Amino acid sequence: MTKFNKITIVGVGLIGGSFAKGLKNAKLVKEVVGFGRSTENLEKAVQLSVIDSYTHDMGEAVKGSDLVFLAVPLGAITDSLHAMKPFLAETTIVTDGSSSKSSVVLSAQEVFGDLPPNFVPGHPIAGKEQSGVTAADGALFVNHRVILTPTKSTNEEAMQIVESAWSSLGANVERMTPQKHDDIFAATSHLPHLLAFGLVEMLNEHPELGNVFQYTAGGFRDFTRIASSDAEMWRDIAVYNSEAITKWLQHYGVAIQTLTDLVAEKDADALYRVFSEAKQARDEHILQIQQN
Amino acid sequence: MTKFNKITIVGVGLIGGSFAKGLKNAKLVKEVVGFGRSTENLEKAVQLSVIDSYTHDMGEAVKGSDLVFLAVPLGAITDSLHAMKPFLAETTIVTDGSSSKSSVVLSAQEVFGDLPPNFVPGHPIAGKEQSGVTAADGALFVNHRVILTPTKSTNEEAMQIVESAWSSLGANVERMTPQKHDDIFAATSHLPHLLAFGLVEMLNEHPELGNVFQYTAGGFRDFTRIASSDAEMWRDIAVYNSEAITKWLQHYGVAIQTLTDLVAEKDADALYRVFSEAKQARDEHILQIQQN
Repeated sequence: MTKFNKITIVGVGLIGGSFAKGLKNAKLVKEVVGFGRSTENLEKAVQLSVIDSYTHDMGEAVKGSDLVFLAVPLGAITDSLHAMKPFLAETTIVTDGSSSKSSVVLSAQEVFGDLPPNFVPGHPIAGKEQSGVTAADGALFVNHRVILTPTKSTNEEAMQIVESAWSSLGANVERMTPQKHDDIFAATSHLPHLLAFGLVEMLNEHPELGNVFQYTAGGFRDFTRIASSDAEMWRDIAVYNSEAITKWLQHYGVAIQTLTDLVAEKDADALYRVFSEAKQARDEHILQIQQN
Repeated sequence: MTKFNKITIVGVGLIGGSFAKGLKNAKLVKEVVGFGRSTENLEKAVQLSVIDSYTHDMGEAVKGSDLVFLAVPLGAITDSLHAMKPFLAETTIVTDGSSSKSSVVLSAQEVFGDLPPNFVPGHPIAGKEQSGVTAADGALFVNHRVILTPTKSTNEEAMQIVESAWSSLGANVERMTPQKHDDIFAATSHLPHLLAFGLVEMLNEHPELGNVFQYTAGGFRDFTRIASSDAEMWRDIAVYNSEAITKWLQHYGVAIQTLTDLVAEKDADALYRVFSEAKQARDEHILQIQQN
């Protein structure tokens, strides 16, 4: 296990806080410094022993750090990299936890010119209903996937250090390209979120049926649960992973057009084929996941 | 409370069985006769005291019955009505529990010519993960909605008897036209089911990403839970409520096209507006339902 003298958490919320807490619990880090804007939040993080100290000065935060974990909203990535650039040592590893990876690589290119060898983009696939540092949990990543998306410049040593940190938190680490990551998560996460937002908004904008929400049952509640997600975060994801999400929305638009035709034509056999294949795929794959 | 001497359950599964069991528990019926094809299933229903006796002879089943509850798949409604027609007394009330109502009214018109005054189409909005008579539960309808959709020929007395039966099971009974029912449930139930089936099937048919299901998280599992529903039942619903579902699929197609454009154009403000309005609507309405 790699041990760290100092790590820096830029953005001390659920993800950044859980990463720090996990490493502290495992005694793999001597000092955790938090950086952020809200003093109240950072004070709380110290009280909860998620971080050891905090600062509003980026220079102070990252100087002498072995690893900087960037856990800010997608819209704040470029500014954060800009702010830390003058203070980063050559040996400091920079990694992040954003849901979109190509855009983070682009931000780094914009800020650093050549991509730094110690820059390791990442994405832990974990969350909770609650957000914020009070929900931080050192066990949040146990048995969860963490995708690391090295660039062509990323060096292997830096990769292995970040992998080791996540592994020590119980996560299953996997490598892929930023493009493949964005494509997969556009399809499996970003698309369903947008579809759920879209359904609720559509019903909301068709008042001719009265308040239809009163007639919804458990299926609707499950289907639209993700439409209660944070609107700002999803705006950022939609904008920063625009290309891959657009592609999958277009694929889905075609699939819906096909379904519409089958329903309009009352093509019972074709509808049965779609439904039973989908049911079989979900039962197989999702059951398999839940058993793992 | 209306008391019945004899009621007949045509199709003794979860819904038909729960209706019978509830009335028996409340001592509102002297004799419940079950009709169906599977002897094994009907034997089980007797063992579970869901019904008192059974028969494979429709004449025997409905003769002298105060109320016939039709709880068969949508595709079997017309045949069942045909089979019982010669044996129905003028005083026998016929009601059902199907998820689509205009098609049931059409079936009745086809079978009876003029719609009988004692024909009361209905739809209890309740279900369970398990199906079949072993899951039958006299309390299934407590605090659940039951929609009755009288035709122009339905008489008020028959309506009140059916209302009274459902109320005695703890259900909240509401009346609307078959068309309005179909429109509302196409939007709030049938559409989301088709969208979930459609998403899983689309991912299944894009093997270029490998097995993407392994990368799905809780949001995807919730969103697609209804894609594990019974394919035959949903084929029937799609076919028998084709008109209303087609309309809402078309509306949704337009909504998805708009969203696709906003994502492609990275229109952050418009996306934020959609997401935050949807989130607000869901939080308000669904929370309200869950508190009721």
